[in-house]
Amino acid sequence: MFDKLKEECGVFGVYDNNELDTSRLTYYGLFALQHRGQESAGIAVNNNGTMLYRKEMGMVSEIFDDVVLNYLKGHSAIGHVRYSTTGESYAENAQPLVIKYTKGHMAIAHNGNLTNAAALKHALEKQGTIFQTTSDTEIIAALLSRSRIKYNTIEDALQEVMTQIKGAYSLLVMTPHKLIAARDPLGMRPLVMGKKEDSYVFSSESCAFDSLGIDLIRDVEPGEIIVVDSKGMRSIQIETPEKSATCIFEYIYFARPDSVMDGIEVFTSRFEAGKVLAKEYPVDADVVVGVPDSGLAAAKGFSQESGIQYVNGFMKNRYVGRTFIQPSQDMRELGVHMKLNPIRSQIAGKKVVMIDDSIVRGTTCRKIVNLLKDAGATEVHVRISSPPVKHSCYFGIDTPERQKLVASTMNNDEIRELIGADSLGYISQAGLLGTCRNGKRDYCMACFNGRYPISVD
Amino acid sequence: MFDKLKEECGVFGVYDNNELDTSRLTYYGLFALQHRGQESAGIAVNNNGTMLYRKEMGMVSEIFDDVVLNYLKGHSAIGHVRYSTTGESYAENAQPLVIKYTKGHMAIAHNGNLTNAAALKHALEKQGTIFQTTSDTEIIAALLSRSRIKYNTIEDALQEVMTQIKGAYSLLVMTPHKLIAARDPLGMRPLVMGKKEDSYVFSSESCAFDSLGIDLIRDVEPGEIIVVDSKGMRSIQIETPEKSATCIFEYIYFARPDSVMDGIEVFTSRFEAGKVLAKEYPVDADVVVGVPDSGLAAAKGFSQESGIQYVNGFMKNRYVGRTFIQPSQDMRELGVHMKLNPIRSQIAGKKVVMIDDSIVRGTTCRKIVNLLKDAGATEVHVRISSPPVKHSCYFGIDTPERQKLVASTMNNDEIRELIGADSLGYISQAGLLGTCRNGKRDYCMACFNGRYPISVD
Amino acid sequence: MFDKLKEECGVFGVYDNNELDTSRLTYYGLFALQHRGQESAGIAVNNNGTMLYRKEMGMVSEIFDDVVLNYLKGHSAIGHVRYSTTGESYAENAQPLVIKYTKGHMAIAHNGNLTNAAALKHALEKQGTIFQTTSDTEIIAALLSRSRIKYNTIEDALQEVMTQIKGAYSLLVMTPHKLIAARDPLGMRPLVMGKKEDSYVFSSESCAFDSLGIDLIRDVEPGEIIVVDSKGMRSIQIETPEKSATCIFEYIYFARPDSVMDGIEVFTSRFEAGKVLAKEYPVDADVVVGVPDSGLAAAKGFSQESGIQYVNGFMKNRYVGRTFIQPSQDMRELGVHMKLNPIRSQIAGKKVVMIDDSIVRGTTCRKIVNLLKDAGATEVHVRISSPPVKHSCYFGIDTPERQKLVASTMNNDEIRELIGADSLGYISQAGLLGTCRNGKRDYCMACFNGRYPISVD
Amino acid sequence: MFDKLKEECGVFGVYDNNELDTSRLTYYGLFALQHRGQESAGIAVNNNGTMLYRKEMGMVSEIFDDVVLNYLKGHSAIGHVRYSTTGESYAENAQPLVIKYTKGHMAIAHNGNLTNAAALKHALEKQGTIFQTTSDTEIIAALLSRSRIKYNTIEDALQEVMTQIKGAYSLLVMTPHKLIAARDPLGMRPLVMGKKEDSYVFSSESCAFDSLGIDLIRDVEPGEIIVVDSKGMRSIQIETPEKSATCIFEYIYFARPDSVMDGIEVFTSRFEAGKVLAKEYPVDADVVVGVPDSGLAAAKGFSQESGIQYVNGFMKNRYVGRTFIQPSQDMRELGVHMKLNPIRSQIAGKKVVMIDDSIVRGTTCRKIVNLLKDAGATEVHVRISSPPVKHSCYFGIDTPERQKLVASTMNNDEIRELIGADSLGYISQAGLLGTCRNGKRDYCMACFNGRYPISVD
Repeated sequence: MFDKLKEECGVFGVYDNNELDTSRLTYYGLFALQHRGQESAGIAVNNNGTMLYRKEMGMVSEIFDDVVLNYLKGHSAIGHVRYSTTGESYAENAQPLVIKYTKGHMAIAHNGNLTNAAALKHALEKQGTIFQTTSDTEIIAALLSRSRIKYNTIEDALQEVMTQIKGAYSLLVMTPHKLIAARDPLGMRPLVMGKKEDSYVFSSESCAFDSLGIDLIRDVEPGEIIVVDSKGMRSIQIETPEKSATCIFEYIYFARPDSVMDGIEVFTSRFEAGKVLAKEYPVDADVVVGVPDSGLAAAKGFSQESGIQYVNGFMKNRYVGRTFIQPSQDMRELGVHMKLNPIRSQIAGKKVVMIDDSIVRGTTCRKIVNLLKDAGATEVHVRISSPPVKHSCYFGIDTPERQKLVASTMNNDEIRELIGADSLGYISQAGLLGTCRNGKRDYCMACFNGRYPISVD
Repeated sequence: MFDKLKEECGVFGVYDNNELDTSRLTYYGLFALQHRGQESAGIAVNNNGTMLYRKEMGMVSEIFDDVVLNYLKGHSAIGHVRYSTTGESYAENAQPLVIKYTKGHMAIAHNGNLTNAAALKHALEKQGTIFQTTSDTEIIAALLSRSRIKYNTIEDALQEVMTQIKGAYSLLVMTPHKLIAARDPLGMRPLVMGKKEDSYVFSSESCAFDSLGIDLIRDVEPGEIIVVDSKGMRSIQIETPEKSATCIFEYIYFARPDSVMDGIEVFTSRFEAGKVLAKEYPVDADVVVGVPDSGLAAAKGFSQESGIQYVNGFMKNRYVGRTFIQPSQDMRELGVHMKLNPIRSQIAGKKVVMIDDSIVRGTTCRKIVNLLKDAGATEVHVRISSPPVKHSCYFGIDTPERQKLVASTMNNDEIRELIGADSLGYISQAGLLGTCRNGKRDYCMACFNGRYPISVD
Repeated sequence: MFDKLKEECGVFGVYDNNELDTSRLTYYGLFALQHRGQESAGIAVNNNGTMLYRKEMGMVSEIFDDVVLNYLKGHSAIGHVRYSTTGESYAENAQPLVIKYTKGHMAIAHNGNLTNAAALKHALEKQGTIFQTTSDTEIIAALLSRSRIKYNTIEDALQEVMTQIKGAYSLLVMTPHKLIAARDPLGMRPLVMGKKEDSYVFSSESCAFDSLGIDLIRDVEPGEIIVVDSKGMRSIQIETPEKSATCIFEYIYFARPDSVMDGIEVFTSRFEAGKVLAKEYPVDADVVVGVPDSGLAAAKGFSQESGIQYVNGFMKNRYVGRTFIQPSQDMRELGVHMKLNPIRSQIAGKKVVMIDDSIVRGTTCRKIVNLLKDAGATEVHVRISSPPVKHSCYFGIDTPERQKLVASTMNNDEIRELIGADSLGYISQAGLLGTCRNGKRDYCMACFNGRYPISVD
Repeated sequence: MFDKLKEECGVFGVYDNNELDTSRLTYYGLFALQHRGQESAGIAVNNNGTMLYRKEMGMVSEIFDDVVLNYLKGHSAIGHVRYSTTGESYAENAQPLVIKYTKGHMAIAHNGNLTNAAALKHALEKQGTIFQTTSDTEIIAALLSRSRIKYNTIEDALQEVMTQIKGAYSLLVMTPHKLIAARDPLGMRPLVMGKKEDSYVFSSESCAFDSLGIDLIRDVEPGEIIVVDSKGMRSIQIETPEKSATCIFEYIYFARPDSVMDGIEVFTSRFEAGKVLAKEYPVDADVVVGVPDSGLAAAKGFSQESGIQYVNGFMKNRYVGRTFIQPSQDMRELGVHMKLNPIRSQIAGKKVVMIDDSIVRGTTCRKIVNLLKDAGATEVHVRISSPPVKHSCYFGIDTPERQKLVASTMNNDEIRELIGADSLGYISQAGLLGTCRNGKRDYCMACFNGRYPISVD
């Protein structure tokens, strides 16, 4: 319905040394990460070695109330929000996964996608392991449990597991005495560490820290394992490839604009992308509009670089929630469009540059161009702050099958015609890279160029 | 919690001559008016003289599903959204009110507030009338029913009733054969008429027409009664005072930016208010930010007039719904703030002009100024696109009691200090009036100057 | 689905002089009356002149929880349970009806049916009255309010109203200072008065008193108005016809077996009916079974009189609630029957007398006879503890239209064949009357003999 | 609240060869078994090798609707109902358990309790196995999966597993091509096999077959494994102890009266128990009453043997469901008792024999004796159709800890005094055994005599 790529998860965790209310802190943390997943949510707390938890289908504010949060008392806590995927039994896949194993209880929350999941599962099944979910998290738990037999500590076991699993993952593991954060060797999915007095906090994005008054310390590094326990924090670095492969779509669309990843504020990178677009695809126009909400930052940048006036072109109806009945085809043909409405005074009689973050199937983009023309735009020039999306992602992002990616089957001019624009420009890959260059990180751009950082079978 | 004045209702109605799906049209219409009331919603349809209806506590998308909309089949329909008020039994006050009277069934939806409601109720009770709700709508229905005994048509009866009731009202009345729209003689609350092929449509705001592909014809005039039936539309004009008194807060805050009232687009009037503010209270600053969402248009105007750069200063968490657990005082002291988060790169080290639409109690404004300072703003200059709110409204807007209106007890400098701003400027009444001058309408500004257009007992 | 006549309501009220928890007392009272109505329930309490209330669709235990009951604090309380009827908007018809009128607030709960409702409504509408429900209660409230203008007290007004309304009613009226109970001049629907220390309590049936440890004082008399206030209780007797016309079906089926009406225990009257049946329709058989639950008492009586052994013939599945999915026709043909299952050992190879309280459409009876035969009964002799139901009720009982009453279109032998019984006997009218003779009450038997105690237009 | 021992589960399964609607058949089957567990329910179907399922907290009719049952299409199906236990996360323990293992998908439903669960779990954990629930079913699944590596068929693997697990179990295992039923070597928990045309059906109790028009073939034998696939049904008998140890409480209380186990109808065995009681503890009395519902059959038997009249002594309020607010202590002291009410006419002035199936804590029994005395019983003689319950059960029945079992700490006379009875008699162990003697089965009576058929660590 929204024609966007979809992030599949967000994680949050806290190890408390300050009598913080860990379940409420996690509740608010997940709240700030709600944009990363709206299918299910869960919180587990470590209550003296027992893991109390609640996880359910739905949004954070629907699942938790004061009664539940009061019940979830614990010294440490981890939480998870999740997007919809394709398994038969969705509820079973909600996280955190809470298990009992030879050393007691453990809770795991995971953002990402293993590329060798099928092979790992197959091998485990051959040895008699049973699986109750279709989530990679259960595979990680099974491997951890087996490694733990051989190794003296959970972090040692985790190191072994990290040599077995391939793909993208940002992981939180809570045991009776420790909270462990780990990020895959390529650093594909984000994970940051914060501190509140003596307590350590982890989150998929720093925006959750801002909302909670927590100081952002730094990103967890690719291939880094951070162990927090009563003695404090220590870091273990496993071997990593020369180049990292952080998902660049976090900057383009997934992350919240107020988050900072690897020292780069997401808003700023989007703003810069707008500036690059203005240089790469200049156009003679009267106004620049951004498609709310993810196109707004780039539109501002385009305006600044081009000198073309930035205007608020759209009113977005914020009440279109999950229970909203979508207009039928008949209704849509009558002109019913509930989500966006152009603000006529800003558009009518104007040559418009319209900025959006990406085109996936092209359907929504065509509708928005139409709305602008119906509102009196004399020209609509579409500028996209990501390169053409031509390849599926195997690292935790929900992409449609390749043939539905409009850029994999059409050239630029065909797409322009499809969406009814007067011109169309995508930012170049190099241009995009320039917006998030920080000297220390390389990015995965496989969805644009098909160069997967890990071979995908 | 949001420290805003609150609109109390929105109405929508359709008389179909084109086999439109009236209940779905009304559903989407109410959806576009959801910002006018989120406590309860209802739709009544005229099914060959029987009024089928559904009304409940909750938002439009929570109350109606396909089963209900399929049940609500009718040739005409009216709908209503409502804000929270103070009666004991909220559910009973949901609208439309559907009644049976001597001529059959009738449904009424009403936006506004009668100032002589108590006296009218008292007089009716003296004659034996019973009341089941605390809404003015029931009073109007009781009067209409009595007048209908004397008069041959519902519109004649309505004319008599309009001489009896005083105050603000935009009214939709649906009978087995007619749909009637009426607006009080001062035109206090908005009401517009649209047309889709041969069908007539009424709405509190034109944004609902835009979303539905309906052409806006014109505003219903103060003191006008419009009757639609199978013979078409006709207008009756009752006597009105020389000057109208349309609520100016509709332009400042209540209405959606993309709505047009009396020929003036709401967005434009807000943008103009920003320009006026920049002239009236210029300031030396680096950036202008608007408080989302209602301060954004004026911020753009301020920027344009002043030449100071407009930036996107805030990220707003859209998931803060009704079931969200507000942070406790303890949590807030730890720094937890979920609704707004500054985008640091836009703010840090800058002198900031912060534009908001109004200050009611001052509490929220203080928090937002704080957020900006915490994010590194070196100065925060607050500019408000409405004059100081000093007086309660008696015409359908929920205002706190006078002593809680900060501007009724403090002078400008005291307020500035309270909210922690470096400077504070409110638009002047004359300046504001200039933003919505159209030669044909006068405005009620009683909440600023205490000059009530109707004496309030 | 259950092929029974349906009672339409139950009422309960308390005027407290002992610091009783009135809302909880009413909650438990309604609970004991739940068999009289399962569609909606409501409780109103008099909180110093304000009537707080909650009423909703659903069963008593679904609507009320501790939060609601704690909110409903009051010196007096009335409650209501209601069966499903045919109005468009069920929720609006839930009771008690709470209104404001010239003397303040008032709450009314009503069990029964007015036979001149349409005429009364018509006359009131002619004078301008509007109606928001389709319940008779609103008519009574409108009349009471009008009479109250002329009379000094609510009880005087009620006396006038009782000369205007015709039909069956047991009524509770709660005002800021009084609780009033009234019963129609024919005493058609039951109403009893109890006392707990100094507090007066009213209920449709005495079983509610038993469950609450309240002493049953006596029945409210036909045409009696009982006023309770801080000065105590007093009775007003209005004129009544020579003969009362209490609904005899209360004894046959509606009332709970442990209730006592006019000095006669319901269980005992049913037991006696079984004895009469044994005399009127003796049969040579091995065992007597009652159809649970309402046929059990008569089966015991039949057994005692005839000397034929009483056995527990059926297992009833108590989990068949409202959300149960009824077996489809296909499923039923496969033999699926969830509600009743015969206990084979008691039936197989036996000649069975099967006792039920009534036959309405005949469909259920046929199925039960079949079950017995499938379980090995060699003969099934059906005995019914009410005479053939041939006429519709207009006094508050939901009867199917006449042509669906099997006894109105078929003779005894045709019915016997329809239900597949080896013999069929209905108790005689005289025989039935004998089971509840107490010297002071006459009964309405219109559903058997068509002699309506009030002319029905 | 009900002071009864609690059965912990019921299972139902069908392998279809006749185009039966397997999910609906299972729905109705579980419905008939609802008395065996009301905490959660679930159905899994084999849809061409994929196991579709739905399981949730709640009653059968709450969890499944037509949408869900239509989704659950499959060639075979198994279902489960479950009682409340003490795990932290109840929802996770709902059954059937659906897993993926090396040979594909598998679903398991289980009634019973393993006595060596802790040891098995410990051993598995030592090898790296993780557990996500606290149910024995997951242990069985883990063992099955491991054995399946060694053995060619699931039934061979199951045979091995049955040598590893100890305790009580009736098990249904559904694989892509088979449905397997198995019963522990002692036959502790019931399990019967039925047939409908060419389709095989299994159920904890035969009452489910009756309700579904399915023919009861026979009981699954202790230590028997029955395999059903497209080639038909075959039986594997594993080694068993000389004596079986079927739970005798199934006859006393758990099973539905209309069920037949090992050729003995439950109703009949209870009726016989009543006769034995009359012989063992004769008493001079006027009437016999049974405590509904489980005491009724024995009361009938007592009456027949003693010649004392059987009467319906109680009215039971069937609306006391889970959302019912229990009366507070204050309320109870006022005399509020909602569940049972004596029918006065049957009790008053009489010497009463009161029959119940068991006394666990004694609290409920005391209340019921009190009710009878308050209703005018001159004497109350309590007779219990089971011997004194003195020992906890470890085989799937929820018993309170031993010191709460009144018979483990008090002698007969002390209990009599506690419950306020005039005399008290429990059936003897030998007497009870006589009621279910069929020549081929021995019974576990450990809760009476402490002789556990398996050593319990």
